Amino acid sequence: MHTCELISVGTELLLGDILNTNAQYLSREMASLGIGLLHQSTVGDNPGRLSSEIRSSLSRCDIIITTGGLGPTPDDITKETVCEALGFRLCRDSAILADIESHFTRRGKVMPAENAKQADIPEGAAVFKNSCGTAPGAALEKDGKCVIILPGPPREMKMMFNESVRPFLISKYSDGVIISRNVRTFGIGESDMAHRVSDLLKSVNPSVAPYAKDGEAFLRVTASAESRAKAEALLLPVIADIKSRLSDFIYGIDYESLQEAVVKLLSEKGLRAAFAESCTAGYISKRITEVPGSSSVFECGAVTYSNAMKTKMLNVSPKTLERFGSVSEQTAVEMARGVMEISGADIGVSVTGVAGPGDDGEFPEGLSFIGICGAQGSFAERFETGRKNAREYNRYVTASKALDMLRRFIIKNY
Amino acid sequence: MHTCELISVGTELLLGDILNTNAQYLSREMASLGIGLLHQSTVGDNPGRLSSEIRSSLSRCDIIITTGGLGPTPDDITKETVCEALGFRLCRDSAILADIESHFTRRGKVMPAENAKQADIPEGAAVFKNSCGTAPGAALEKDGKCVIILPGPPREMKMMFNESVRPFLISKYSDGVIISRNVRTFGIGESDMAHRVSDLLKSVNPSVAPYAKDGEAFLRVTASAESRAKAEALLLPVIADIKSRLSDFIYGIDYESLQEAVVKLLSEKGLRAAFAESCTAGYISKRITEVPGSSSVFECGAVTYSNAMKTKMLNVSPKTLERFGSVSEQTAVEMARGVMEISGADIGVSVTGVAGPGDDGEFPEGLSFIGICGAQGSFAERFETGRKNAREYNRYVTASKALDMLRRFIIKNY
Repeated sequence: MHTCELISVGTELLLGDILNTNAQYLSREMASLGIGLLHQSTVGDNPGRLSSEIRSSLSRCDIIITTGGLGPTPDDITKETVCEALGFRLCRDSAILADIESHFTRRGKVMPAENAKQADIPEGAAVFKNSCGTAPGAALEKDGKCVIILPGPPREMKMMFNESVRPFLISKYSDGVIISRNVRTFGIGESDMAHRVSDLLKSVNPSVAPYAKDGEAFLRVTASAESRAKAEALLLPVIADIKSRLSDFIYGIDYESLQEAVVKLLSEKGLRAAFAESCTAGYISKRITEVPGSSSVFECGAVTYSNAMKTKMLNVSPKTLERFGSVSEQTAVEMARGVMEISGADIGVSVTGVAGPGDDGEFPEGLSFIGICGAQGSFAERFETGRKNAREYNRYVTASKALDMLRRFIIKNY
Repeated sequence: MHTCELISVGTELLLGDILNTNAQYLSREMASLGIGLLHQSTVGDNPGRLSSEIRSSLSRCDIIITTGGLGPTPDDITKETVCEALGFRLCRDSAILADIESHFTRRGKVMPAENAKQADIPEGAAVFKNSCGTAPGAALEKDGKCVIILPGPPREMKMMFNESVRPFLISKYSDGVIISRNVRTFGIGESDMAHRVSDLLKSVNPSVAPYAKDGEAFLRVTASAESRAKAEALLLPVIADIKSRLSDFIYGIDYESLQEAVVKLLSEKGLRAAFAESCTAGYISKRITEVPGSSSVFECGAVTYSNAMKTKMLNVSPKTLERFGSVSEQTAVEMARGVMEISGADIGVSVTGVAGPGDDGEFPEGLSFIGICGAQGSFAERFETGRKNAREYNRYVTASKALDMLRRFIIKNY
């Protein structure tokens, strides 16, 4: 199996001005090509540090991919440094110079003199055209090692990778396939989940790794084999085993999110849902409608903070609000019924609670009541995130809980 | 000047499952503390690779910060590996064990046996409490070097950094003060903004750096001096100069977001706003209510996808929908008026458009009409993000445009 390391070049990354999305993108691509990514690093626009990084990476792996430092300014030093480290000579390529000049003339501009250096190509390297920028990329191969230099702007880097680098890697360095499946759960903690599959965590191929994100726990199951079919065959029994152990905590495999699972379920059953939100304040509607095609299952959303609005928009009875308070099981149920009735949706879902920061005197931050109403009747559940000073987290996880309750309600009743 | 390197630990980062936002956050913090960040690296859950990474980092800098690998599962190996590399012994801390147990009991759960290892503390290290998770952090100091281990989940890491790590670093490793001010704009492109301040970009102390994020352009102004007062004095004239050049494109300085600026304006003027959203589908309500205290200025939100709902919830006339279509200036105006009238808010804001992916046959993806209605009357603006296949981006930037229009409407009329 070929091994790879990423080197991101740019002082702006070390200052935190820029989020390094290139590293995630290239990491995913390497995994899908069956190339083992062992290490990522970021260095500034500093020839000394970059060349020592290149040397230590070369000692560990056979493919290096660098991003950034191919611009026209004097502090762009990646190409020069890589050439020096590998002993390649730079020479100007007139065809590429013409490309760069036309990039400017097409925009009615004259090419600044600085950009000419972007047409200097490592002699004997494979060159990758830049179809939406001026800096070409290249692959420098020597002694069975390969250093691929790519531009830093994500748009240019991704386009170049898709058009030129992926085909190059497949033809030369991709042996076998690595496939990962992501088992996504809600309602079970990472350690509890890991406990239920602790023996599987020791297996090697497929490997099973737990991780947690935004109040959800995941298991990543990864298999490598010489063919996709063989890798899939390795995954199958392990996934089945995991399903039997985590049962209905699993909302999907390789899903992007809970809302994707819910939208899929709603459309399968031909149902439309409506949402009434207090503390989550539109978060559920926003997340449901992140899913393309959600318009066929999303009826409407009502964001009602004040009691007045709960009565005006959702017909929650003032008596209920007075007697039980706005944060109560009864209010949650009436909100869910209200939004279902005014919208004519099949199912109404409601949330009323305390997002924080700080409790509301009566209830702790992170507590909410989540209501569901359908033709079968209505109910509400009390839910606590258990987090303090975590308004965004509390809102997100409370919205997730509501989505998961809706998911379970559909599975149970339709 | 002290130097620092970051080591992110986690195979999920090498597989591209997770975007490394911790690295950006910590890089910014180091810059603001005047600690020179030289290098970032990411390694998998692999003791051998992690310890060699630690060794080479220690040979280059005097502070290492690791994130990740402090979880309860067997593949969480950061603490053990760092202790071995630096020669620290782990011993169980009963007080921290009690904290972890109560973290579960507060949620009506029993602590899984796996979590006990999170109470193992490097003997003689400074320990950082985790106020929103179970894994404590620590600072291991030896021979003038310091290794700080932090949990991987961004929420836990950031809270721990704010509560414990920043004060620790200031007291021990921060010489002099570096202050940054963030000038935030909306409605002007990064290069246009940079052009207007091009001469300032060359200055050294304060330095002025442009950057762009999520459809907004920022200027980071950074001054370093031996005291906070002196650094502030250096910043003052430059900020004033920038203000005069970018004028009302600036929505705030050191604000977190447009919604923070809007909520501040609304509360200053004692106004309440209501929102009617189609393509942004709750995103504006969600963002406004991210701001603590927004309940005093946020009246309600209505998320209406279908024409039926626009009429039912917002009294948009069926004639208007039929004649001009749901994505039109006229519909936007009636949505804004409708949500203002039903809610009794001072100002109504509406969005109707095409989030994508793909155009809707008539209008391109990313086009929307944004309506504003107040006692002074109503109007709508046509807005285009100009991006294809960028549903999330289009929704976010369209919501930002609506917030900016509301900001300008308040400044002009109240």
